[in-house]
Amino acid sequence: MPQDHAPSPPRGASPATLADPPEAAFDWIDEACAERHRAGLVRTLRPRPADSPLLDLASNDYLGLARHPEVTRGAAEAAHRWGAGATGSRLVTGSTELHARLERELAAFCGFEAALVLSSGYAANLAAVTALTAHGTLVVSDAGNHASLIDGCRLSRARTAVVPHAAPAAVRTALTGHDGRALVVTDAVFSVDGDAAPLPALAEVCRAHGAGLLVDDAHGLGVLGDGGRGALAAAGLAGRGDVVATVTLSKSLGSQGGAVLGPARVIEHLVNTARTFIFDTGLAPAAVGGALAALRLLAREPRRAARAREVGAELHRRLAAAGLAVVRPDAAVVSVRAPSPGQALRWAADCRRAGLAVGCFRPPSVPDGISRLRLTARADLTPAQLDTAVDVIVATAPTP
Amino acid sequence: MPQDHAPSPPRGASPATLADPPEAAFDWIDEACAERHRAGLVRTLRPRPADSPLLDLASNDYLGLARHPEVTRGAAEAAHRWGAGATGSRLVTGSTELHARLERELAAFCGFEAALVLSSGYAANLAAVTALTAHGTLVVSDAGNHASLIDGCRLSRARTAVVPHAAPAAVRTALTGHDGRALVVTDAVFSVDGDAAPLPALAEVCRAHGAGLLVDDAHGLGVLGDGGRGALAAAGLAGRGDVVATVTLSKSLGSQGGAVLGPARVIEHLVNTARTFIFDTGLAPAAVGGALAALRLLAREPRRAARAREVGAELHRRLAAAGLAVVRPDAAVVSVRAPSPGQALRWAADCRRAGLAVGCFRPPSVPDGISRLRLTARADLTPAQLDTAVDVIVATAPTP
Ligand SMILES: Cc1ncc(COP(=O)(O)O)c(C=O)c1O
Ligand SMILES: Cc1ncc(COP(=O)(O)O)c(C=O)c1O
Repeated sequence: MPQDHAPSPPRGASPATLADPPEAAFDWIDEACAERHRAGLVRTLRPRPADSPLLDLASNDYLGLARHPEVTRGAAEAAHRWGAGATGSRLVTGSTELHARLERELAAFCGFEAALVLSSGYAANLAAVTALTAHGTLVVSDAGNHASLIDGCRLSRARTAVVPHAAPAAVRTALTGHDGRALVVTDAVFSVDGDAAPLPALAEVCRAHGAGLLVDDAHGLGVLGDGGRGALAAAGLAGRGDVVATVTLSKSLGSQGGAVLGPARVIEHLVNTARTFIFDTGLAPAAVGGALAALRLLAREPRRAARAREVGAELHRRLAAAGLAVVRPDAAVVSVRAPSPGQALRWAADCRRAGLAVGCFRPPSVPDGISRLRLTARADLTPAQLDTAVDVIVATAPTP
Repeated sequence: MPQDHAPSPPRGASPATLADPPEAAFDWIDEACAERHRAGLVRTLRPRPADSPLLDLASNDYLGLARHPEVTRGAAEAAHRWGAGATGSRLVTGSTELHARLERELAAFCGFEAALVLSSGYAANLAAVTALTAHGTLVVSDAGNHASLIDGCRLSRARTAVVPHAAPAAVRTALTGHDGRALVVTDAVFSVDGDAAPLPALAEVCRAHGAGLLVDDAHGLGVLGDGGRGALAAAGLAGRGDVVATVTLSKSLGSQGGAVLGPARVIEHLVNTARTFIFDTGLAPAAVGGALAALRLLAREPRRAARAREVGAELHRRLAAAGLAVVRPDAAVVSVRAPSPGQALRWAADCRRAGLAVGCFRPPSVPDGISRLRLTARADLTPAQLDTAVDVIVATAPTP
């Protein structure tokens, strides 16, 4: 390659002189944009006001704690006392005693030896997958796993075997014959359909093959297990030496951030090697304080977790009775299938016009290509709100 | 591979029966840990109290805004008014009008058409690199780039050419002969040595080759440019059609979060395609409110930016006069070289014992293997505090 020749002309479509080349580098985006429009897959942001009149069945605020006065007060007081930001990496100035307190209480609540708080659940998953694998490791990953686990696999230097959804036999097959370290990675509750992973069977396969088990309990914490201690506690796997969990502070705990839970040696290893921990600013004190307040509230009011599950079961029962294709929920995510992406979109828009916010999942965000409404079975929905939600969803349903 | 044979015994070192295999999956961590201890490279968390007696020259709180009452009030009020968390992805329930306000004001302040706020600067870099590249794109990445840009390159489906540090000629060579889309990626101010990238020369090379330019201005925002508008504004590159910037809200703005700044079509493309945006919970309202308050304060008190640069120059002048190997700072990061990792560590510990917190960078966190102290030239340091800092650093310096 010649190093000192005259600059070549830009590759944009429009003719230009060498003296004044156009700013054409991102022209390709217009084509990608037009393609999205043609396919009817354009996503736009819709900022909400502080006091939205919509009934919320779209968020991940399973326990209704994001706006609970104890939780917002926990956040606000932490900002006043500890500052608006953590000011640096957790390894430099970004660890406060408040972070340490949350880590202790979260580990104890979920039944693990130690915990490490990161700036998001996404960062926690990237950290856990990359730090627990190396060149030569085999990662066995469920086909329905969350984007952050998938990106963790892509960032790692390991080989990844993607196995069919919720199939311990396929996991066993993938592990069989592999000689060396292995890590099995799964969501505890899958974010799209709300179904639970077969954790006991996966743990048995892992143990038999000497593989580690990494479980993302983003949608299980606060909902599953005794008092909301999560899917690992529910399965009797919390605290085991070969099990690591990730959680997020942004769903049931109504705040922001993520955490990795596991044996102390695993946590210490993450502190020393996980890039999304080391090279990232610590979680803001307000998010730590909000999550800590929510955790204490949940410990004091364990009924909230069971209530979220009851609301989920009730939603399922009533929507199924109305003839809708609703998946029986294992936690607090209720998925209702729609005949097509276009009808899912129209259904969600009709709900919205009727005052009800629901999630709408369509390709390419769904691994199986099936469009659906996604409903959050919030523990704090009143009976009247539940009635309204069911009425609106049924009344606006596409005719088959 | 046989699928239904008896489970193979675990690969741990200890003998075990098939009925009760040990939890050996993470035993390899003990060896990694021992290795770190042998190399003297163990990192431990040191949680700080709310009122640390240490003089802080270690954080990234360049303008001293993280604990400014206006900023902490902005965070606290946002938590009360909008909730402790955003409750969902920005595309579902996680966009508030507060997010939209910060995006408008940040874009206007820095001189870009549009902005998109993410949960961290790390996530912003992953989003920008992956969304602006595809299979066949050539990414040209400076050897000194931040871990988050490097991980963005690893996550992308593009081919990455790593070029020598701050060398526009090497960038030109890498681009020459490449046929197709290209993106040049660089820190504006390198986090380790505090030196600035040659942005005008890089922009010229990019323009000549039709390549996009992506600049991480994490350490430039609030410090460089007129009133702290950042390195891109300082170089006259803000708002150009082929230039995209990322910033973090966690350094000069004293909060948490990150943002991508660029042409509206680029931002719209990110909303539709960037996985760390789409599949991540929106930034917590308190972090948004804190950053917005800091931005408004900076707009009202533009002297703060220049003051940070002055403190940097003053630290450099006085430490160099004392015979230390200090790099002339281009922004507010002052890097002082140490003879060895061990001496860097001892130096930082001696500073700490004398009441001064400084950063200590050693392998493997430094790309060139050189250990150094890293000092933050905080705009709000008093002359007396500056005297103390210089005195302590000089008094504790390793004898050559
Ligand atoms: C299963 C799962 N894991 C991880 C995440 C990421 O967590 P966070 O939004 O806190 O980054 C999410 C959702 O956002 C999720 O649904
Ligand atoms: C150059 C650079 N880019 C990006 C980041 C990541 O930003 P954040 O800590 O807000 O995730 C950092 C530091 O943390 C940084 O130094």
